[in-house]
Amino acid sequence: MGEEVEVVVENKQVILRDYINSGVPKETDMILSTCSTIRLKVPEGSRGVVLKNLYLSCDPYMRGRMRSPHSFTSRHVPSFTPASQPIVGYGVAKVLDSGNPNFKVGDYVWGLTEWADYALIHEPNSLFKIKYTDVPLSYYAGVLGMPGITAYVGFNELCSPKAGERVFVSAASGAVGQLVGQFAKLMSCYVVGTAGSNQKVDLLKNKFGYDEAFNYKEEHDLDAALKRYFPQGIDIYFENVGGKMLDAVLPNMRMNGRISACGMISQYNLEKPEGVHNLMEIIIKRIHIFGFVVSDHYHLYPKFLELTKQYIKEGKITYVEDVAQGLESAPAALVGLFSGRNIGKQVVVVAHE
Amino acid sequence: MGEEVEVVVENKQVILRDYINSGVPKETDMILSTCSTIRLKVPEGSRGVVLKNLYLSCDPYMRGRMRSPHSFTSRHVPSFTPASQPIVGYGVAKVLDSGNPNFKVGDYVWGLTEWADYALIHEPNSLFKIKYTDVPLSYYAGVLGMPGITAYVGFNELCSPKAGERVFVSAASGAVGQLVGQFAKLMSCYVVGTAGSNQKVDLLKNKFGYDEAFNYKEEHDLDAALKRYFPQGIDIYFENVGGKMLDAVLPNMRMNGRISACGMISQYNLEKPEGVHNLMEIIIKRIHIFGFVVSDHYHLYPKFLELTKQYIKEGKITYVEDVAQGLESAPAALVGLFSGRNIGKQVVVVAHE
Repeated sequence: MGEEVEVVVENKQVILRDYINSGVPKETDMILSTCSTIRLKVPEGSRGVVLKNLYLSCDPYMRGRMRSPHSFTSRHVPSFTPASQPIVGYGVAKVLDSGNPNFKVGDYVWGLTEWADYALIHEPNSLFKIKYTDVPLSYYAGVLGMPGITAYVGFNELCSPKAGERVFVSAASGAVGQLVGQFAKLMSCYVVGTAGSNQKVDLLKNKFGYDEAFNYKEEHDLDAALKRYFPQGIDIYFENVGGKMLDAVLPNMRMNGRISACGMISQYNLEKPEGVHNLMEIIIKRIHIFGFVVSDHYHLYPKFLELTKQYIKEGKITYVEDVAQGLESAPAALVGLFSGRNIGKQVVVVAHE
Repeated sequence: MGEEVEVVVENKQVILRDYINSGVPKETDMILSTCSTIRLKVPEGSRGVVLKNLYLSCDPYMRGRMRSPHSFTSRHVPSFTPASQPIVGYGVAKVLDSGNPNFKVGDYVWGLTEWADYALIHEPNSLFKIKYTDVPLSYYAGVLGMPGITAYVGFNELCSPKAGERVFVSAASGAVGQLVGQFAKLMSCYVVGTAGSNQKVDLLKNKFGYDEAFNYKEEHDLDAALKRYFPQGIDIYFENVGGKMLDAVLPNMRMNGRISACGMISQYNLEKPEGVHNLMEIIIKRIHIFGFVVSDHYHLYPKFLELTKQYIKEGKITYVEDVAQGLESAPAALVGLFSGRNIGKQVVVVAHE
């Protein structure tokens, strides 16, 4: 259980100032607190672990945790504790001390940690021990972590894709979308993605192997854009956006289409979500919609990991990260998600080893 | 093949005057034409059948067929041919002549026929031969016909109900809804229905065995009404209504809830459907939505028929019809669906035998 030295160190933390129930979060809505210290030992009798954070993951769902517990999204994910507790999110970390038989000192883990240099995790149920360290460890904040298995579950498991089917992905260059497109190509599907800049569109076509891609900000008529790329309609829609995009997609779905939905980023900063009008299409096209939360499907992680690790090794899956340096850059990195500033998966390096 | 007598008779028909793209259809939008005749023999070499119509079924989906072929619902169901061809709908009929080996003279059938005294059906692919005649034949326009299997497929097959689950049914006293509630009770579910009059609410509670029922027109706050009847939320929603009702239901769904949707009657008369705002609930609650069109599931008809016939025989399923007399009453009966005038399944008697 490590050396029996009592070490108390400074522990910088990123803390939300107050709940943000509507509007776009700003960098100044978070503070970097330098007032805390942490003892790098688990308490006597605890089954917890002390982590040294290496990489933190910035994910769109975290917007919901910024709302008050009375907000509708608080039933999706619990609210952060503003003013006193650090933000909680996915990350990659090294175990410095452990009272838990599943983790030993020196293990690398991914899962829910605190936005801080170090974290004492009392109940490490949501931590996964990292099995393969011959890939960059930051991958476990993305392609081999929560966003990766999100893409796999939503596309491969829930939508049951078949070769030749036509797949549309919104927020396609993000952590989840870039992988959905590549899984779709590996299944011999035709896949089109949309993103919010020409640079991202280039990435989709030239890096991730999307057959086509378009910048939705340059399309005044989303319906026309979809008809251009899907003259015969869409079999599978991987929904990351919601609102107007969903409304435009529905009439362009094909018979027996499937939609998997794990997020609707366009709606997160609105006080009242946009209305979606074209729901009769669900009936007309016999569409099945699968809402899901990836943590319900973590029993599939080993299956996903072996498959994806192999694809990465063979060069069949590529992965683009947008890396912010230092815990102090985390607030800007997180809020950048909502203006689409990041190119690829947004991670924050807290420490190297 | 019947007697070789050449019989040409007058054939009254109900014809739509012109497309109705928005607004509530009126009785005067249809005419009863007495200008046509029909030869009660199939043409030489035809594999068609000549039917004498007995009962016609008034179904909400027929609203979509009143729209022009350029309307969104024309991809759900083909438009009627106004001014010249009779309205097409489900019905129960007797075979007067047949060129088809699957049907013989004297057979009773249910399926798609024309709103007329008689009909020549060139391609009788959508006709089912009636196996059991020890129940009222009109049942095959309802509980043992298309609305019946709609209830069975949407509830029993798609939503995979389990004993003790909480079920909500909109348009609950209609042809489909009355049966969903009874299937739910037979599965030991808790079931609540909503309808648009106190008389219908009485029917739900005292005739169909719904645990609870309410008149949505007397509730100014649908959310509050749903919370009253489902303090712990809804596991299964059988969607017949859409719009505001769906928006109120979504936040009241439980984790892993299922919604089957085969119609959205509240939206049929609108030019632009209402916006539904609470779609993030699909993700929050991991809801699965199954849009379906019952004709895709007709291979299940024999299974459904044996089950439901037995329930009827044992008195475990009851059925209420609203019977209009004579083909001339058909236009009023059909438009009555959209003001909720009918109590129970709306049928029209064209002839007794």
